[in-house]
Amino acid sequence: MQIRIGIYGYGNLGRGVESAIRQNPDMKLVAVFTRRDPNTLKINTPDACVCASSEVESYVGKIDVMILCGGSATDLPEQTPTLARLFSVVDSFDTHARIPAHFANVDAAARGGGHIAMISVGWDPGMFSLNRLIAGTILPDGKDYTFWGKGVSQGHSDAIRRIEGVLDARQYTIPVQSAVDTVRRGETPNLTTREKHTRECFVVAAPGADLAQIEKEIKEMPNYFADYDTTVHFITAEELKRDHSGIPHGGSVIRSGKTGLEGDHTHVIEYSLNLDSNPEFTASVIVAYARAAHRMSLEGTRGCKTVFDVPPAYLSDRSYEELIASLL
Amino acid sequence: MQIRIGIYGYGNLGRGVESAIRQNPDMKLVAVFTRRDPNTLKINTPDACVCASSEVESYVGKIDVMILCGGSATDLPEQTPTLARLFSVVDSFDTHARIPAHFANVDAAARGGGHIAMISVGWDPGMFSLNRLIAGTILPDGKDYTFWGKGVSQGHSDAIRRIEGVLDARQYTIPVQSAVDTVRRGETPNLTTREKHTRECFVVAAPGADLAQIEKEIKEMPNYFADYDTTVHFITAEELKRDHSGIPHGGSVIRSGKTGLEGDHTHVIEYSLNLDSNPEFTASVIVAYARAAHRMSLEGTRGCKTVFDVPPAYLSDRSYEELIASLL
Repeated sequence: MQIRIGIYGYGNLGRGVESAIRQNPDMKLVAVFTRRDPNTLKINTPDACVCASSEVESYVGKIDVMILCGGSATDLPEQTPTLARLFSVVDSFDTHARIPAHFANVDAAARGGGHIAMISVGWDPGMFSLNRLIAGTILPDGKDYTFWGKGVSQGHSDAIRRIEGVLDARQYTIPVQSAVDTVRRGETPNLTTREKHTRECFVVAAPGADLAQIEKEIKEMPNYFADYDTTVHFITAEELKRDHSGIPHGGSVIRSGKTGLEGDHTHVIEYSLNLDSNPEFTASVIVAYARAAHRMSLEGTRGCKTVFDVPPAYLSDRSYEELIASLL
Repeated sequence: MQIRIGIYGYGNLGRGVESAIRQNPDMKLVAVFTRRDPNTLKINTPDACVCASSEVESYVGKIDVMILCGGSATDLPEQTPTLARLFSVVDSFDTHARIPAHFANVDAAARGGGHIAMISVGWDPGMFSLNRLIAGTILPDGKDYTFWGKGVSQGHSDAIRRIEGVLDARQYTIPVQSAVDTVRRGETPNLTTREKHTRECFVVAAPGADLAQIEKEIKEMPNYFADYDTTVHFITAEELKRDHSGIPHGGSVIRSGKTGLEGDHTHVIEYSLNLDSNPEFTASVIVAYARAAHRMSLEGTRGCKTVFDVPPAYLSDRSYEELIASLL
């Protein structure tokens, strides 16, 4: 009996979930829900339906886990609670500061509906969170650092695109190698924002646009760029397409800490990701946690959960005996 | 109310557990049990008792979790089942091939006694196992590699010491850097044992011993050295003490895999440890899992468990609200 999956929202992440499901024979894609006209949407799973999002209620009982693939800014805060009343759901809500509020909303809805809702699944939040938590419990007398990149930040790319005279843009977040090396050696420096990451921007400007003004606006943009050393390159639309159409990302969570009666020994724990496709990797994490959510739901777990609640064995489709014999 | 811990066996690992407990204010060391004469043993925790191992039964009800710090060859196969009848226990049984048999014995004993018994906790088995499991579920179409070192292998050092004419020895396991680099790039080579690790031995020979014969015996020793490129250095006892008295270790679990409809994208997940003291780090992992074992026991969990069963939040002494607000 395969786990029946629904995908709600069919952008980069939704397509990633679709292809991840094909790598997991214990799962089956039942339907993709879209706000667009379903007739205009072509998906890659012949047996699955393409449905209007308004039809979603008619799939109650036909879908075991609904995977929400909308954005964190406006989609998920509304969609996750709404759908958690109807289905077991997994989302990748990634606005760290708003997680507690999202958790509370989703928890009430999921309990009301008698479902499980796993939020903030992906790599950060997600795998990086898990590693911050576990490494911190192993080395309580220590400090952790998260470095992101080199990778594309969609949020920062979008922010540049909103500047007048910009046609398109791609922004890379780049960790400062010397800072990474210092932390890797087990030192625990206090690093400013500027000392941890730099930002590199590739911008396609409209003909006749004021390039100096665009560059100034980028570099001075509060929150996004002002606290960083930022480099701006103006390129053509063709160059952007040719050299910057991928969505790579990654990074590292590094914790170092001391043990021993006098803090005599230093240890470094590092978890690193090097990802060719940010949305496809995020989707792959989500699909593994959808399996766990389904198992936990069958066992009677209700309400909002996160990666912090999942016994790792539940992520796998292999038997427990097989796991301890082959992986432990 | 602190978690009351007992330590059973007071070698390097037991001392590591003792110092790790001091870093975790929600825990308290109640007693150390030893097979030696308790009067000859000096520990570093003034309030804790030093007891003969024969007295252990009198501590039922006074200890929440007993941490077993004996060896995997002969101690734990007997001690873990015996003590799991009396207490919640955690061990670091690390003979991978014998884990299923150990699990079965311990499970029966723990269920018989109405306790939880967490086995094979440490970094390998332990943290490395966890990362093999999770990375494998995220990237099912992939391959993983475990590299150990650079670090001291006690088993290999002991094997050298058993050779005639050897007074003392220290063996380092060293990963082959070019193999690590290849795997880190996302390639999935088939590597032989020889291609993954080399072995470097520092040997103190007895006066007049046949050095060529010792070197030959080391390099040809089946299982331990014959399948590796091994280097042997003869040094003095003073040099061994001066340069090789630490017990560093570490290594990496690296999985790479492909996603996308045509396997278009490659991802690399790496978990790495760089440890100044193998026993103190192992002890720190055990102490975090002892906290989880205690919580799971209070919730009614019984029988043998592993790192694969533990919801990560249970490792921490911080509230769930705090964890999702600060680490997720």
